[in-house]
Amino acid sequence: MASAAAAFVQRGKKIVAIGRNYAAHAKELNNPAPKEPFFFLKPTTSYVTSGGNVEIPKGIVAHHEVELGLVIGKGGRDIPKSNADAHVAGYTLAVDMTARNLQDKVKKQGLPWSAAKGFDTFTPIGPFIPKSTVKEPHDLRLSLKVNGITKQDGTTADMIFRIPRLIEHISSIMTLEEGDLILTGTPSGVGPIVAGDKVECALTDADGKELASLGFTATARQGGYEFTE
Amino acid sequence: MASAAAAFVQRGKKIVAIGRNYAAHAKELNNPAPKEPFFFLKPTTSYVTSGGNVEIPKGIVAHHEVELGLVIGKGGRDIPKSNADAHVAGYTLAVDMTARNLQDKVKKQGLPWSAAKGFDTFTPIGPFIPKSTVKEPHDLRLSLKVNGITKQDGTTADMIFRIPRLIEHISSIMTLEEGDLILTGTPSGVGPIVAGDKVECALTDADGKELASLGFTATARQGGYEFTE
Ligand SMILES: [Mg+2]
Ligand SMILES: [Mg+2]
Ligand SMILES: [Mg+2]
Repeated sequence: MASAAAAFVQRGKKIVAIGRNYAAHAKELNNPAPKEPFFFLKPTTSYVTSGGNVEIPKGIVAHHEVELGLVIGKGGRDIPKSNADAHVAGYTLAVDMTARNLQDKVKKQGLPWSAAKGFDTFTPIGPFIPKSTVKEPHDLRLSLKVNGITKQDGTTADMIFRIPRLIEHISSIMTLEEGDLILTGTPSGVGPIVAGDKVECALTDADGKELASLGFTATARQGGYEFTE
Repeated sequence: MASAAAAFVQRGKKIVAIGRNYAAHAKELNNPAPKEPFFFLKPTTSYVTSGGNVEIPKGIVAHHEVELGLVIGKGGRDIPKSNADAHVAGYTLAVDMTARNLQDKVKKQGLPWSAAKGFDTFTPIGPFIPKSTVKEPHDLRLSLKVNGITKQDGTTADMIFRIPRLIEHISSIMTLEEGDLILTGTPSGVGPIVAGDKVECALTDADGKELASLGFTATARQGGYEFTE
């Protein structure tokens, strides 16, 4: 049987997603760059594997945010930066889909982000990438195309808070477990996708080798939640 | 093997917690009563079973919120109110511990509630109560004492949004799975607990029969996160 880390999509319990971890992205949404990391939770019911459909609820403006994912191997609490790497089993490529108009509304009201980030299919997810195949996680290229046109093309070198700091921060608040996923934030270029759009993402290393790809099609959600102002 | 519902503390994947579902509680924190339900996610790593310690992080003002929990049996999506009861396997008694000063800070900034609600040990949790033993979940007494003094004593009859509506709303956004827990909101009387406090909670039915009890001691968290203004 595969380890819980390699099978994180089926067996992981939580997704911890970092906000505003790239200065250019914070700026494009008129948000201040954070002084310490912050995060929100996404439910694992939001996963959809490559080739699937991202369903856009009625009335929702759904933005793509391509991100590097960290898959936790060894669980832990109060993990120091110096030992954070020992807790990472591998990486993945993910899209943190965001209901931007709902998020804007709840932000103004001081309400949780959980619905805006947590709709079914709002976390398209690539394959598990064993850690041994990645030389330097802070030197990877993240790209996302909509209908063949590049919208996001950034490097993990631009993270404001690097991976060990993220793991230290999260695990000082909540215990990490094998199979948990950490989304590390998105570079600039986020924007809406609408039903019918085809999205392709890639993660490549400094040598130009593709470590993972991830594709999905946007469709209109039938039934379910409807956003109104 | 116990069903995933009966073993929800070990095997459940998500905790969906409703905010402001009792008018008197919304008012005591100067919040408007909501026009539709809203929720946030807590990680299952925040569970602590009865008799355990709730650890209060440094600098955190930690409030108790005693709540009725719904344990999901049959999973589902777009569950209509008329069929919601078929998805409930049972009930439980829980405390939605809340880092109130951190929550106040992030609310002002439009940031997620996830850390304020998600610290380790911030979801003290009672036993699984099979549905068959509860005649009317909207006529239960929820009480909480701190050091023997009653702080919360409310009835689930006062929920603004009743159980079928909560299940309909949540499942219109995210699929519910066996073992998921829904926290249904807290009656008025929330307040701080500090290291050394002993907390006792009870859930009783309309006949005065105790369905569950839950106790814990507050301790100071060693290490970990520290809140600063
Ligand atoms: Mg993101
Ligand atoms: Mg939140
Ligand atoms: Mg609560």
